[in-house]
Amino acid sequence: MRTVLVTGMSGLIGGIVRRRLEGRYELFALNRRAVPGIHTYRADIADFDAILPAFEGKEVVIHLAGHLGEDWEGNLHTSIIGTYNVYEAAWRHGVQRIIYASSGAVIGGWEREEPYKALVEARYQDVPFPWPLVNHETPLRPRSLYGCAKAWGEILGRYYADAFGISVLCIRIGHVTAEDRPTRLPADWANWCSQRDIAQMIERCVEAPASLRFGIFYALSDNRWRYRDIEYARRWLGYAPQDNAEAFRPQE
Amino acid sequence: MRTVLVTGMSGLIGGIVRRRLEGRYELFALNRRAVPGIHTYRADIADFDAILPAFEGKEVVIHLAGHLGEDWEGNLHTSIIGTYNVYEAAWRHGVQRIIYASSGAVIGGWEREEPYKALVEARYQDVPFPWPLVNHETPLRPRSLYGCAKAWGEILGRYYADAFGISVLCIRIGHVTAEDRPTRLPADWANWCSQRDIAQMIERCVEAPASLRFGIFYALSDNRWRYRDIEYARRWLGYAPQDNAEAFRPQE
Repeated sequence: MRTVLVTGMSGLIGGIVRRRLEGRYELFALNRRAVPGIHTYRADIADFDAILPAFEGKEVVIHLAGHLGEDWEGNLHTSIIGTYNVYEAAWRHGVQRIIYASSGAVIGGWEREEPYKALVEARYQDVPFPWPLVNHETPLRPRSLYGCAKAWGEILGRYYADAFGISVLCIRIGHVTAEDRPTRLPADWANWCSQRDIAQMIERCVEAPASLRFGIFYALSDNRWRYRDIEYARRWLGYAPQDNAEAFRPQE
Repeated sequence: MRTVLVTGMSGLIGGIVRRRLEGRYELFALNRRAVPGIHTYRADIADFDAILPAFEGKEVVIHLAGHLGEDWEGNLHTSIIGTYNVYEAAWRHGVQRIIYASSGAVIGGWEREEPYKALVEARYQDVPFPWPLVNHETPLRPRSLYGCAKAWGEILGRYYADAFGISVLCIRIGHVTAEDRPTRLPADWANWCSQRDIAQMIERCVEAPASLRFGIFYALSDNRWRYRDIEYARRWLGYAPQDNAEAFRPQE
Protein backbone atom coordinates (compact mmCIF):
# COMPACT_ATOMS: atom_id res chain seq x y z
CA MET A 1 0.00 0.00 0.00
CA ARG A 2 1.16 3.52 -0.76
CA THR A 3 2.05 5.69 2.21
CA VAL A 4 0.07 8.90 2.65
CA LEU A 5 0.66 11.58 5.29
CA VAL A 6 -2.29 13.84 6.07
CA THR A 7 -1.92 17.15 7.92
CA GLY A 8 -5.01 18.51 9.67
CA MET A 9 -6.79 15.15 9.76
CA SER A 10 -8.84 16.24 12.76
CA GLY A 11 -10.76 18.78 10.69
CA LEU A 12 -13.96 18.32 8.67
CA ILE A 13 -12.22 17.57 5.40
CA GLY A 14 -9.57 15.53 7.19
CA GLY A 15 -12.28 13.19 8.44
CA ILE A 16 -13.79 12.91 4.96
CA VAL A 17 -10.38 12.08 3.49
CA ARG A 18 -9.75 9.48 6.14
CA ARG A 19 -13.02 7.68 5.50
CA ARG A 20 -12.40 7.66 1.75
CA LEU A 21 -8.76 6.51 1.81
CA GLU A 22 -8.58 4.27 4.87
CA GLY A 23 -7.81 0.64 4.06
CA ARG A 24 -6.58 1.47 0.56
CA TYR A 25 -3.53 3.46 1.57
CA GLU A 26 -1.29 3.35 4.60
CA LEU A 27 -2.44 6.54 6.31
CA PHE A 28 -0.48 8.67 8.76
CA ALA A 29 -1.46 11.91 10.47
CA LEU A 30 0.61 14.97 11.29
CA ASN A 31 -1.43 16.76 13.90
CA ARG A 32 -1.24 18.62 17.17
CA ARG A 33 -3.57 16.11 18.83
CA ALA A 34 -3.50 12.35 18.35
CA VAL A 35 -6.02 11.11 15.77
CA PRO A 36 -7.67 7.98 17.22
CA GLY A 37 -6.83 4.82 15.30
CA ILE A 38 -4.21 6.52 13.10
CA HIS A 39 -0.46 6.61 13.54
CA THR A 40 -0.08 10.28 14.44
CA TYR A 41 3.08 12.36 14.44
CA ARG A 42 2.24 14.97 17.04
CA ALA A 43 3.85 18.33 16.39
CA ASP A 44 3.20 22.00 15.77
CA ILE A 45 3.40 22.52 12.01
CA ALA A 46 5.34 25.75 12.52
CA ASP A 47 8.19 23.79 14.13
CA PHE A 48 10.26 22.51 11.24
CA ASP A 49 12.53 20.21 13.22
CA ALA A 50 9.55 18.68 15.00
CA ILE A 51 7.63 17.82 11.83
CA LEU A 52 10.53 16.67 9.66
CA PRO A 53 10.55 12.99 10.77
CA ALA A 54 6.87 12.60 9.79
CA PHE A 55 7.77 12.87 6.10
CA GLU A 56 10.29 10.04 5.98
CA GLY A 57 9.13 7.24 3.71
CA LYS A 58 5.89 8.93 2.65
CA GLU A 59 4.93 8.93 -1.02
CA VAL A 60 2.09 11.44 -0.91
CA VAL A 61 1.32 14.30 1.47
CA ILE A 62 -2.19 15.73 1.73
CA HIS A 63 -1.73 19.13 3.35
CA LEU A 64 -5.03 20.20 4.86
CA ALA A 65 -3.80 22.03 7.95
CA GLY A 66 -4.37 25.75 7.82
CA HIS A 67 -5.57 28.60 9.94
CA LEU A 68 -9.28 29.43 9.73
CA GLY A 69 -9.55 33.05 10.70
CA GLU A 70 -8.56 36.58 9.87
CA ASP A 71 -5.94 37.22 12.55
CA TRP A 72 -2.45 37.75 11.21
CA GLU A 73 -0.60 35.77 13.88
CA GLY A 74 -2.60 32.62 13.21
CA ASN A 75 -2.27 32.89 9.45
CA LEU A 76 1.45 33.58 9.73
CA HIS A 77 2.07 30.70 12.12
CA THR A 78 0.04 27.92 10.58
CA SER A 79 -0.61 28.78 6.96
CA ILE A 80 2.51 30.73 5.95
CA ILE A 81 5.28 29.25 8.07
CA GLY A 82 3.56 25.87 8.43
CA THR A 83 3.03 25.46 4.70
CA TYR A 84 6.62 26.41 3.94
CA ASN A 85 7.71 23.77 6.45
CA VAL A 86 5.54 21.13 4.81
CA TYR A 87 6.98 21.75 1.33
CA GLU A 88 10.53 21.86 2.58
CA ALA A 89 10.21 18.73 4.74
CA ALA A 90 8.48 16.86 1.90
CA TRP A 91 11.23 17.77 -0.52
CA ARG A 92 13.98 16.77 1.90
CA HIS A 93 12.46 13.32 2.31
CA GLY A 94 11.77 12.73 -1.37
CA VAL A 95 7.97 12.86 -1.21
CA GLN A 96 6.61 12.46 -4.76
CA ARG A 97 3.44 14.49 -4.52
CA ILE A 98 1.90 17.16 -2.32
CA ILE A 99 -1.82 17.73 -2.53
CA TYR A 100 -2.39 21.21 -1.20
CA ALA A 101 -5.78 22.20 0.19
CA SER A 102 -6.18 25.67 -1.22
CA SER A 103 -9.47 27.50 -1.21
CA GLY A 104 -11.83 29.36 -3.48
CA ALA A 105 -10.99 32.28 -1.16
CA VAL A 106 -7.86 32.87 -3.29
CA ILE A 107 -10.06 34.09 -6.14
CA GLY A 108 -13.14 35.04 -4.09
CA GLY A 109 -12.27 38.72 -4.52
CA TRP A 110 -13.77 38.45 -8.00
CA GLU A 111 -17.13 38.16 -6.24
CA ARG A 112 -16.85 41.92 -5.65
CA GLU A 113 -17.52 42.43 -9.37
CA GLU A 114 -20.29 41.52 -11.79
CA PRO A 115 -21.35 39.02 -12.92
CA TYR A 116 -19.81 37.06 -10.05
CA LYS A 117 -21.44 39.36 -7.50
CA ALA A 118 -24.88 38.66 -8.91
CA LEU A 119 -24.18 34.92 -8.98
CA VAL A 120 -23.20 34.68 -5.32
CA GLU A 121 -26.04 36.96 -4.28
CA ALA A 122 -28.47 34.77 -6.25
CA ARG A 123 -29.65 37.75 -8.36
CA TYR A 124 -29.95 35.52 -11.40
CA GLN A 125 -31.94 38.01 -13.46
CA ASP A 126 -28.75 40.12 -13.54
CA VAL A 127 -26.52 37.34 -14.84
CA PRO A 128 -25.67 37.24 -18.57
CA PHE A 129 -25.90 33.87 -20.29
CA PRO A 130 -23.39 32.43 -20.80
CA TRP A 131 -21.36 34.03 -18.06
CA PRO A 132 -17.55 34.06 -17.92
CA LEU A 133 -15.87 31.50 -15.67
CA VAL A 134 -12.97 31.96 -13.31
CA ASN A 135 -10.39 29.30 -14.08
CA HIS A 136 -6.90 28.16 -13.09
CA GLU A 137 -5.31 30.98 -15.08
CA THR A 138 -7.41 33.83 -13.72
CA PRO A 139 -5.30 36.23 -11.64
CA LEU A 140 -5.36 35.60 -7.93
CA ARG A 141 -7.69 37.90 -6.06
CA PRO A 142 -8.08 36.92 -2.42
CA ARG A 143 -11.21 37.93 -0.59
CA SER A 144 -9.62 37.78 2.86
CA LEU A 145 -6.36 37.50 4.73
CA TYR A 146 -7.13 33.78 4.91
CA GLY A 147 -7.29 33.80 1.11
CA CYS A 148 -3.93 35.58 0.91
CA ALA A 149 -2.35 32.96 3.14
CA LYS A 150 -3.86 30.16 1.04
CA ALA A 151 -2.52 31.79 -2.13
CA TRP A 152 0.94 31.75 -0.58
CA GLY A 153 0.82 27.95 -0.53
CA GLU A 154 -0.02 27.81 -4.24
CA ILE A 155 2.82 30.14 -5.18
CA LEU A 156 5.28 28.20 -3.09
CA GLY A 157 3.95 24.98 -4.60
CA ARG A 158 4.58 26.22 -8.10
CA TYR A 159 8.15 27.02 -7.13
CA TYR A 160 8.78 23.67 -5.44
CA ALA A 161 7.34 21.84 -8.44
CA ASP A 162 9.53 23.77 -10.89
CA ALA A 163 12.71 23.87 -8.87
CA PHE A 164 12.70 20.49 -7.15
CA GLY A 165 10.57 18.29 -9.39
CA ILE A 166 8.01 17.44 -6.73
CA SER A 167 4.44 17.10 -8.03
CA VAL A 168 2.16 19.72 -6.47
CA LEU A 169 -1.59 19.66 -7.03
CA CYS A 170 -3.57 22.54 -5.56
CA ILE A 171 -7.29 22.14 -4.91
CA ARG A 172 -9.32 25.32 -4.54
CA ILE A 173 -11.98 23.88 -2.32
CA GLY A 174 -15.50 25.28 -2.32
CA HIS A 175 -17.83 25.36 0.67
CA VAL A 176 -17.85 21.91 2.26
CA THR A 177 -20.40 21.75 5.08
CA ALA A 178 -20.75 19.54 8.14
CA GLU A 179 -24.42 18.92 7.32
CA ASP A 180 -23.40 18.01 3.74
CA ARG A 181 -25.90 20.28 2.07
CA PRO A 182 -25.92 23.95 1.05
CA THR A 183 -26.46 26.35 3.94
CA ARG A 184 -28.73 29.41 3.77
CA LEU A 185 -25.87 31.44 2.29
CA PRO A 186 -26.91 32.45 -1.25
CA ALA A 187 -23.31 31.87 -2.40
CA ASP A 188 -23.71 28.17 -1.70
CA TRP A 189 -25.82 27.76 -4.86
CA ALA A 190 -22.60 28.58 -6.70
CA ASN A 191 -19.78 27.43 -4.41
CA TRP A 192 -21.01 24.44 -2.43
CA CYS A 193 -19.05 21.18 -2.60
CA SER A 194 -20.49 17.94 -1.27
CA GLN A 195 -18.45 15.66 0.93
CA ARG A 196 -18.34 12.89 -1.65
CA ASP A 197 -17.28 15.33 -4.35
CA ILE A 198 -14.34 16.69 -2.35
CA ALA A 199 -13.44 13.10 -1.41
CA GLN A 200 -13.44 12.14 -5.07
CA MET A 201 -11.31 15.14 -6.02
CA ILE A 202 -8.67 14.37 -3.42
CA GLU A 203 -8.62 10.70 -4.35
CA ARG A 204 -8.15 11.57 -8.02
CA CYS A 205 -5.27 13.84 -7.10
CA VAL A 206 -3.63 10.96 -5.22
CA GLU A 207 -4.11 8.71 -8.24
CA ALA A 208 -3.16 11.17 -11.00
CA PRO A 209 -0.16 10.21 -13.16
CA ALA A 210 3.25 11.18 -11.81
CA SER A 211 3.77 13.21 -14.99
CA LEU A 212 1.22 15.74 -13.70
CA ARG A 213 3.79 18.07 -12.19
CA PHE A 214 1.66 21.03 -11.22
CA GLY A 215 -2.02 21.84 -11.35
CA ILE A 216 -4.72 24.05 -9.90
CA PHE A 217 -8.21 22.56 -9.69
CA TYR A 218 -11.54 23.77 -8.39
CA ALA A 219 -13.50 21.40 -6.17
CA LEU A 220 -17.18 22.16 -6.48
CA SER A 221 -20.28 20.11 -6.96
CA ASP A 222 -21.90 20.30 -10.38
CA ASN A 223 -23.83 23.41 -9.34
CA ARG A 224 -25.97 25.12 -11.92
CA TRP A 225 -24.88 28.61 -10.83
CA ARG A 226 -21.17 27.99 -10.37
CA TYR A 227 -18.69 30.49 -11.79
CA ARG A 228 -15.54 28.48 -11.13
CA ASP A 229 -14.38 26.19 -13.89
CA ILE A 230 -14.46 22.44 -13.24
CA GLU A 231 -13.83 21.34 -16.84
CA TYR A 232 -10.08 21.52 -16.35
CA ALA A 233 -10.34 19.03 -13.46
CA ARG A 234 -12.70 16.88 -15.51
CA ARG A 235 -10.21 16.84 -18.38
CA TRP A 236 -6.99 16.18 -16.49
CA LEU A 237 -8.16 14.29 -13.41
CA GLY A 238 -11.38 12.70 -14.60
CA TYR A 239 -13.23 14.55 -11.85
CA ALA A 240 -16.95 13.82 -12.18
CA PRO A 241 -18.98 15.46 -9.42
CA GLN A 242 -22.06 13.55 -8.33
CA ASP A 243 -23.94 16.33 -6.59
CA ASN A 244 -25.56 19.65 -7.46
CA ALA A 245 -26.62 22.30 -4.99
CA GLU A 246 -29.80 22.77 -7.04
CA ALA A 247 -31.12 19.44 -5.77
CA PHE A 248 -31.55 21.12 -2.38
CA ARG A 249 -33.48 24.13 -3.69
CA PRO A 250 -36.86 24.36 -1.94
CA GLN A 251 -39.67 23.59 -4.37
CA GLU A 252 -42.40 26.20 -4.72
CA MET B 1 4.53 69.27 -1.15
CA ARG B 2 3.14 65.75 -0.93
CA THR B 3 4.61 63.52 1.76
CA VAL B 4 6.29 60.33 0.61
CA LEU B 5 7.72 57.60 2.85
CA VAL B 6 10.34 55.34 1.28
CA THR B 7 11.37 51.99 2.79
CA GLY B 8 14.78 50.63 1.83
CA MET B 9 16.11 54.01 0.69
CA SER B 10 19.68 52.88 1.36
CA GLY B 11 19.56 50.38 -1.52
CA LEU B 12 20.42 50.92 -5.18
CA ILE B 13 16.87 51.70 -6.27
CA GLY B 14 16.27 53.70 -3.09
CA GLY B 15 19.08 56.04 -4.08
CA ILE B 16 17.70 56.39 -7.61
CA VAL B 17 14.26 57.22 -6.23
CA ARG B 18 15.71 59.77 -3.85
CA ARG B 19 17.58 61.61 -6.59
CA ARG B 20 14.48 61.71 -8.79
CA LEU B 21 11.97 62.81 -6.16
CA GLU B 22 14.01 65.00 -3.83
CA GLY B 23 12.90 68.62 -3.78
CA ARG B 24 9.57 67.86 -5.43
CA TYR B 25 8.11 65.82 -2.58
CA GLU B 26 8.68 65.84 1.13
CA LEU B 27 10.66 62.63 1.48
CA PHE B 28 11.00 60.44 4.56
CA ALA B 29 12.87 57.19 5.01
CA LEU B 30 11.96 54.08 7.00
CA ASN B 31 15.24 52.28 7.37
CA ARG B 32 17.40 50.37 9.80
CA ARG B 33 20.24 52.86 9.38
CA ALA B 34 19.87 56.62 9.14
CA VAL B 35 19.86 57.92 5.57
CA PRO B 36 22.07 61.04 5.48
CA GLY B 37 20.14 64.22 4.78
CA ILE B 38 16.71 62.54 5.02
CA HIS B 39 14.37 62.41 7.99
CA THR B 40 14.71 58.72 8.83
CA TYR B 41 12.45 56.62 11.01
CA ARG B 42 14.86 53.98 12.21
CA ALA B 43 13.23 50.62 12.85
CA ASP B 44 13.22 46.96 11.88
CA ILE B 45 10.45 46.52 9.37
CA ALA B 46 9.40 43.26 11.01
CA ASP B 47 8.53 45.16 14.21
CA PHE B 48 5.03 46.49 13.64
CA ASP B 49 4.84 48.74 16.69
CA ALA B 50 8.21 50.26 15.88
CA ILE B 51 7.35 51.18 12.29
CA LEU B 52 3.77 52.35 12.81
CA PRO B 53 4.58 56.01 13.67
CA ALA B 54 6.48 56.44 10.39
CA PHE B 55 3.24 56.25 8.42
CA GLU B 56 1.41 59.04 10.16
CA GLY B 57 0.65 61.89 7.79
CA LYS B 58 2.18 60.25 4.71
CA GLU B 59 0.26 60.33 1.45
CA VAL B 60 2.33 57.85 -0.52
CA VAL B 61 4.54 54.93 0.56
CA ILE B 62 7.20 53.54 -1.76
CA HIS B 63 7.99 50.10 -0.35
CA LEU B 64 11.39 49.04 -1.64
CA ALA B 65 12.69 47.13 1.40
CA GLY B 66 12.97 43.43 0.84
CA HIS B 67 15.31 40.54 1.45
CA LEU B 68 17.78 39.76 -1.33
CA GLY B 69 18.63 36.12 -0.89
CA GLU B 70 17.31 32.59 -0.86
CA ASP B 71 17.34 31.89 2.88
CA TRP B 72 13.93 31.34 4.39
CA GLU B 73 14.49 33.27 7.61
CA GLY B 74 15.47 36.44 5.78
CA ASN B 75 12.58 36.24 3.34
CA LEU B 76 10.14 35.52 6.15
CA HIS B 77 11.39 38.35 8.33
CA THR B 78 11.78 41.19 5.87
CA SER B 79 9.67 40.38 2.82
CA ILE B 80 6.74 38.43 4.27
CA ILE B 81 6.28 39.85 7.77
CA GLY B 82 7.79 43.24 6.86
CA THR B 83 5.53 43.71 3.85
CA TYR B 84 2.45 42.75 5.83
CA ASN B 85 3.46 45.34 8.43
CA VAL B 86 3.86 48.04 5.78
CA TYR B 87 0.39 47.46 4.32
CA GLU B 88 -1.25 47.30 7.71
CA ALA B 89 0.52 50.38 9.07
CA ALA B 90 -0.24 52.33 5.88
CA TRP B 91 -3.90 51.44 6.10
CA ARG B 92 -4.15 52.36 9.76
CA HIS B 93 -2.75 55.82 9.04
CA GLY B 94 -4.85 56.49 5.97
CA VAL B 95 -2.06 56.39 3.38
CA GLN B 96 -3.59 56.87 -0.07
CA ARG B 97 -1.19 54.85 -2.19
CA ILE B 98 1.42 52.16 -1.76
CA ILE B 99 3.92 51.62 -4.55
CA TYR B 100 5.23 48.12 -4.07
CA ALA B 101 8.60 47.13 -5.50
CA SER B 102 7.85 43.68 -6.84
CA SER B 103 10.20 41.89 -9.18
CA GLY B 104 10.26 40.08 -12.49
CA ALA B 105 11.27 37.11 -10.31
CA VAL B 106 7.56 36.55 -9.61
CA ILE B 107 7.09 35.38 -13.21
CA GLY B 108 10.71 34.42 -13.94
CA GLY B 109 9.76 30.75 -13.70
CA TRP B 110 8.36 31.10 -17.23
CA GLU B 111 11.99 31.38 -18.35
CA ARG B 112 12.17 27.62 -17.80
CA GLU B 113 10.01 27.17 -20.92
CA GLU B 114 10.29 28.16 -24.56
CA PRO B 115 10.26 30.68 -26.07
CA TYR B 116 11.21 32.58 -22.92
CA LYS B 117 14.12 30.26 -22.30
CA ALA B 118 15.59 31.00 -25.71
CA LEU B 119 15.07 34.73 -25.19
CA VAL B 120 16.95 34.90 -21.90
CA GLU B 121 19.68 32.62 -23.21
CA ALA B 122 20.04 34.85 -26.27
CA ARG B 123 19.37 31.93 -28.67
CA TYR B 124 17.46 34.23 -30.99
CA GLN B 125 17.36 31.78 -33.89
CA ASP B 126 15.04 29.64 -31.74
CA VAL B 127 12.57 32.43 -31.04
CA PRO B 128 9.33 32.61 -33.09
CA PHE B 129 8.31 36.00 -34.42
CA PRO B 130 6.20 37.45 -32.97
CA TRP B 131 6.67 35.77 -29.62
CA PRO B 132 4.08 35.68 -26.84
CA LEU B 133 4.49 38.20 -24.02
CA VAL B 134 4.08 37.67 -20.31
CA ASN B 135 1.74 40.34 -18.98
CA HIS B 136 -0.01 41.43 -15.80
CA GLU B 137 -2.57 38.63 -16.12
CA THR B 138 -0.14 35.78 -16.71
CA PRO B 139 -0.20 33.32 -13.78
CA LEU B 140 2.48 33.88 -11.17
CA ARG B 141 5.45 31.57 -11.56
CA PRO B 142 8.30 32.49 -9.23
CA ARG B 143 11.79 31.46 -10.16
CA SER B 144 13.11 31.53 -6.60
CA LEU B 145 12.10 31.76 -2.96
CA TYR B 146 12.81 35.47 -3.32
CA GLY B 147 10.25 35.51 -6.13
CA CYS B 148 7.70 33.73 -3.92
CA ALA B 149 8.18 36.30 -1.18
CA LYS B 150 7.79 39.16 -3.67
CA ALA B 151 4.60 37.56 -5.01
CA TRP B 152 3.24 37.55 -1.47
CA GLY B 153 3.39 41.34 -1.45
CA GLU B 154 1.37 41.56 -4.67
CA ILE B 155 -1.32 39.23 -3.37
CA LEU B 156 -1.59 41.11 -0.13
CA GLY B 157 -1.67 44.36 -2.08
CA ARG B 158 -4.61 43.19 -4.14
CA TYR B 159 -6.46 42.34 -0.94
CA TYR B 160 -5.69 45.66 0.76
CA ALA B 161 -6.78 47.56 -2.35
CA ASP B 162 -10.06 45.64 -2.56
CA ALA B 163 -10.90 45.49 1.11
CA PHE B 164 -9.65 48.84 2.39
CA GLY B 165 -9.71 51.09 -0.67
CA ILE B 166 -6.01 51.90 -0.56
CA SER B 167 -4.40 52.30 -4.01
CA VAL B 168 -1.70 49.66 -4.57
CA LEU B 169 0.56 49.77 -7.61
CA CYS B 170 2.98 46.87 -8.02
CA ILE B 171 6.07 47.29 -10.17
CA ARG B 172 7.76 44.13 -11.40
CA ILE B 173 11.22 45.55 -11.68
CA GLY B 174 13.71 44.16 -14.18
CA HIS B 175 17.47 44.06 -13.72
CA VAL B 176 18.61 47.48 -12.54
CA THR B 177 22.41 47.62 -12.34
CA ALA B 178 24.84 49.77 -10.37
CA GLU B 179 26.85 50.44 -13.55
CA ASP B 180 23.61 51.40 -15.34
CA ARG B 181 24.18 49.17 -18.34
CA PRO B 182 23.46 45.52 -19.13
CA THR B 183 25.86 43.06 -17.51
CA ARG B 184 27.30 40.04 -19.27
CA LEU B 185 24.22 38.01 -18.33
CA PRO B 186 22.47 37.08 -21.60
CA ALA B 187 19.11 37.65 -19.86
CA ASP B 188 19.93 41.35 -19.60
CA TRP B 189 19.20 41.83 -23.31
CA ALA B 190 15.61 41.01 -22.35
CA ASN B 191 15.24 42.09 -18.73
CA TRP B 192 17.52 45.06 -18.13
CA CYS B 193 16.04 48.30 -16.82
CA SER B 194 18.02 51.53 -16.83
CA GLN B 195 18.14 53.76 -13.79
CA ARG B 196 16.28 56.59 -15.48
CA ASP B 197 13.61 54.19 -16.70
CA ILE B 198 12.90 52.76 -13.23
CA ALA B 199 12.95 56.30 -11.85
CA GLN B 200 10.38 57.36 -14.45
CA MET B 201 8.18 54.35 -13.67
CA ILE B 202 8.16 55.05 -9.94
CA GLU B 203 7.48 58.74 -10.50
CA ARG B 204 4.56 57.93 -12.79
CA CYS B 205 3.16 55.62 -10.14
CA VAL B 206 3.33 58.44 -7.60
CA GLU B 207 1.57 60.75 -10.04
CA ALA B 208 -1.07 58.34 -11.37
CA PRO B 209 -4.71 59.32 -10.76
CA ALA B 210 -6.18 58.29 -7.42
CA SER B 211 -8.80 56.31 -9.34
CA LEU B 212 -6.12 53.79 -10.28
CA ARG B 213 -6.88 51.43 -7.44
CA PHE B 214 -4.70 48.45 -8.30
CA GLY B 215 -2.21 47.67 -11.02
CA ILE B 216 0.72 45.46 -11.93
CA PHE B 217 3.35 46.97 -14.21
CA TYR B 218 6.62 45.76 -15.67
CA ALA B 219 9.58 48.11 -15.42
CA LEU B 220 11.98 47.39 -18.26
CA SER B 221 13.84 49.46 -20.74
CA ASP B 222 12.57 49.34 -24.32
CA ASN B 223 14.66 46.24 -25.00
CA ARG B 224 14.32 44.60 -28.38
CA TRP B 225 14.30 41.08 -26.89
CA ARG B 226 12.01 41.67 -23.93
CA TYR B 227 9.22 39.17 -23.24
CA ARG B 228 7.49 41.16 -20.51
CA ASP B 229 4.72 43.48 -21.61
CA ILE B 230 5.26 47.22 -21.14
CA GLU B 231 2.28 48.38 -23.21
CA TYR B 232 -0.03 48.15 -20.22
CA ALA B 233 2.22 50.58 -18.31
CA ARG B 234 2.45 52.81 -21.39
CA ARG B 235 -1.34 52.88 -21.66
CA TRP B 236 -2.28 53.47 -18.05
CA LEU B 237 0.74 55.31 -16.65
CA GLY B 238 2.18 56.95 -19.73
CA TYR B 239 5.43 55.07 -19.14
CA ALA B 240 7.83 55.82 -22.00
CA PRO B 241 11.21 54.15 -21.49
CA GLN B 242 14.17 56.07 -22.86
CA ASP B 243 16.72 53.26 -23.00
CA ASN B 244 17.22 49.98 -24.83
CA ALA B 245 19.72 47.30 -23.87
CA GLU B 246 20.51 46.89 -27.57
CA ALA B 247 22.35 50.21 -27.55
CA PHE B 248 25.03 48.47 -25.47
CA ARG B 249 25.46 45.49 -27.82
CA PRO B 250 29.09 45.26 -28.96
CA GLN B 251 29.39 46.09 -32.63
CA GLU B 252 31.07 43.51 -34.83
